[in-house]
Amino acid sequence: MARRSGATLAEIAAEAGVSLSTMSKVLNGRPDVSAATRERLEQHLRRHGYTRRGAQRAEMIEVVFHELEAAWSMEVIEGVLDVAQQAGLSIVLTVSGDRHAPSPDWLDGVLRRRPLGVVLVFSDLPAPHRAKLRSRGVPFAIVDPAGDPAPDVPSVGSANWSGGLAATRHLIELGHQRIAAITGPEDMMCSLARVDGYRSAMNAANLPIDPDWIRFGDFHATGGESHARALLTGPNPPTAIFAGSDLQAMGVISAASAQGLSVPGDLSVVGYDDIDLARWLSPQLTTVHQPLRRMGEEAARLVIRLAGGESVDTLRMDLATHLVVRGSTAPPAS
Amino acid sequence: MARRSGATLAEIAAEAGVSLSTMSKVLNGRPDVSAATRERLEQHLRRHGYTRRGAQRAEMIEVVFHELEAAWSMEVIEGVLDVAQQAGLSIVLTVSGDRHAPSPDWLDGVLRRRPLGVVLVFSDLPAPHRAKLRSRGVPFAIVDPAGDPAPDVPSVGSANWSGGLAATRHLIELGHQRIAAITGPEDMMCSLARVDGYRSAMNAANLPIDPDWIRFGDFHATGGESHARALLTGPNPPTAIFAGSDLQAMGVISAASAQGLSVPGDLSVVGYDDIDLARWLSPQLTTVHQPLRRMGEEAARLVIRLAGGESVDTLRMDLATHLVVRGSTAPPAS
Repeated sequence: MARRSGATLAEIAAEAGVSLSTMSKVLNGRPDVSAATRERLEQHLRRHGYTRRGAQRAEMIEVVFHELEAAWSMEVIEGVLDVAQQAGLSIVLTVSGDRHAPSPDWLDGVLRRRPLGVVLVFSDLPAPHRAKLRSRGVPFAIVDPAGDPAPDVPSVGSANWSGGLAATRHLIELGHQRIAAITGPEDMMCSLARVDGYRSAMNAANLPIDPDWIRFGDFHATGGESHARALLTGPNPPTAIFAGSDLQAMGVISAASAQGLSVPGDLSVVGYDDIDLARWLSPQLTTVHQPLRRMGEEAARLVIRLAGGESVDTLRMDLATHLVVRGSTAPPAS
Repeated sequence: MARRSGATLAEIAAEAGVSLSTMSKVLNGRPDVSAATRERLEQHLRRHGYTRRGAQRAEMIEVVFHELEAAWSMEVIEGVLDVAQQAGLSIVLTVSGDRHAPSPDWLDGVLRRRPLGVVLVFSDLPAPHRAKLRSRGVPFAIVDPAGDPAPDVPSVGSANWSGGLAATRHLIELGHQRIAAITGPEDMMCSLARVDGYRSAMNAANLPIDPDWIRFGDFHATGGESHARALLTGPNPPTAIFAGSDLQAMGVISAASAQGLSVPGDLSVVGYDDIDLARWLSPQLTTVHQPLRRMGEEAARLVIRLAGGESVDTLRMDLATHLVVRGSTAPPAS
């Protein structure tokens, strides 16, 4: 933690005659400060013992999840790890909080560990957390922001709306008209974006949507199974289900089997994510490929560049998704 | 790294009049040294700046794999993480080397990171690595040692032979006589143990084994698929396959589907591991439960106890495996 003068960042900013926000930008290696100002402010920071690229910084990137879900999380981890190891860095893996934010004590821990940077797999990071990390010069990036992160929050997402649209369009093109969607939790932006893509595809094809056909799951197999059971035994069963995640798709297929329905003969199923195992399911899963590994890689690169004081033009990046057609979808039986 | 006198451990041992091995035992918190000797030798160590439980030790457990295989690795990681977080520790995740040992430069990295301890998912750790970690007081434990670790190497495995036996016995009890086994790589002890369990079950039931029925895979889905394709299209196709891992079982089921064979109608399949997704496959996978999460937990506990200088009675632990019967096995058709 170097020899600090004891001055707060606000005091140093006042001394240098700039706003706290500008000083914080310099400390965090943000690009939108002129080179001359940056140079001058970095001198102030150094004099007070604030070090941004510090030798005391642990040669690590910390990756924080609210839960480890094997297939999904591992691909993000592998992406971060690849980039980190190429840069001679290790990764620290932490599980904390709920899907919205890490728990408050995580912040103390990370400031003690002093990683080079942090990759967060959360909706967002509360403003006080962001301010604290910035004041300590710990750059961070959010993977798959489920909320709507502030524009100055570095983040790597993917095209959820387009993914939902492509999945549903594929089913419509096969001739399905009775299509249900099981998306993720209602309080996650990516769930809403995927189901909005579904709605747009249905509307564009003038297909009516039974309100019962739109369901909010939990992204796990159990959620897919219980919603599919309700849909398939309900008054208005669909001939196809867009399952919102590959795990939910496995739950849907399991519920269909339990009803004596074959996939894709009696029911078409589209997943989302394209986890490594999707092509090893029987039938092989038609799904929307979400580039989880690349999202992890890009987030790690962003953090390394910010930590190195490089200027970064694009703080917010959405990677493309695309449909992978395999064996779990076919024209409707009737 | 404290204020070292520059003396090697051998020199300190000579000064204290004990063997290097005894000095190393004390440094590593090993139990087989009397309390009086330990106390005396720890004084020597402290005088030369060697610290065993050190405050300079990073509050971390390092987990090292040769590859991250989503389902399998994540369960081990979750086990280590649970125990680590309960003890207020973080985990560092490293991928290095091949399945036999981490690469040589890993050792430099870990000595720089100075974790509280290391959990290795490898066959074994080369003797020079072990000596170096011990001399620096970094305790370690090996999970699922695929080789035959030296008796003084702390390790947590599972009952592979019993697992292979139980899987094969189950198929025999269903009435199968033509049973093949696809185990893991030939140079891994766990592969050999599982296939030996298969052999013993077949021999005990007086069932002949076609040499073509014993195959060494790679524990991945691709290996299961290619071996199953060869078996099912060969001159002497089995009615049941013990697949050696759940991923291989998925490959076997995929190969069966491609041949127009249904599981379990035309072919029974038993997996190994019981990964989280095994019960979400259709059909649900009959498999041997390997307590991967508990293996991670026990290894982490072992490392924490060794790091705390506690005496540990059992350095080598094999956890039980058990068969979980689900939907992928049934009596043979004919």
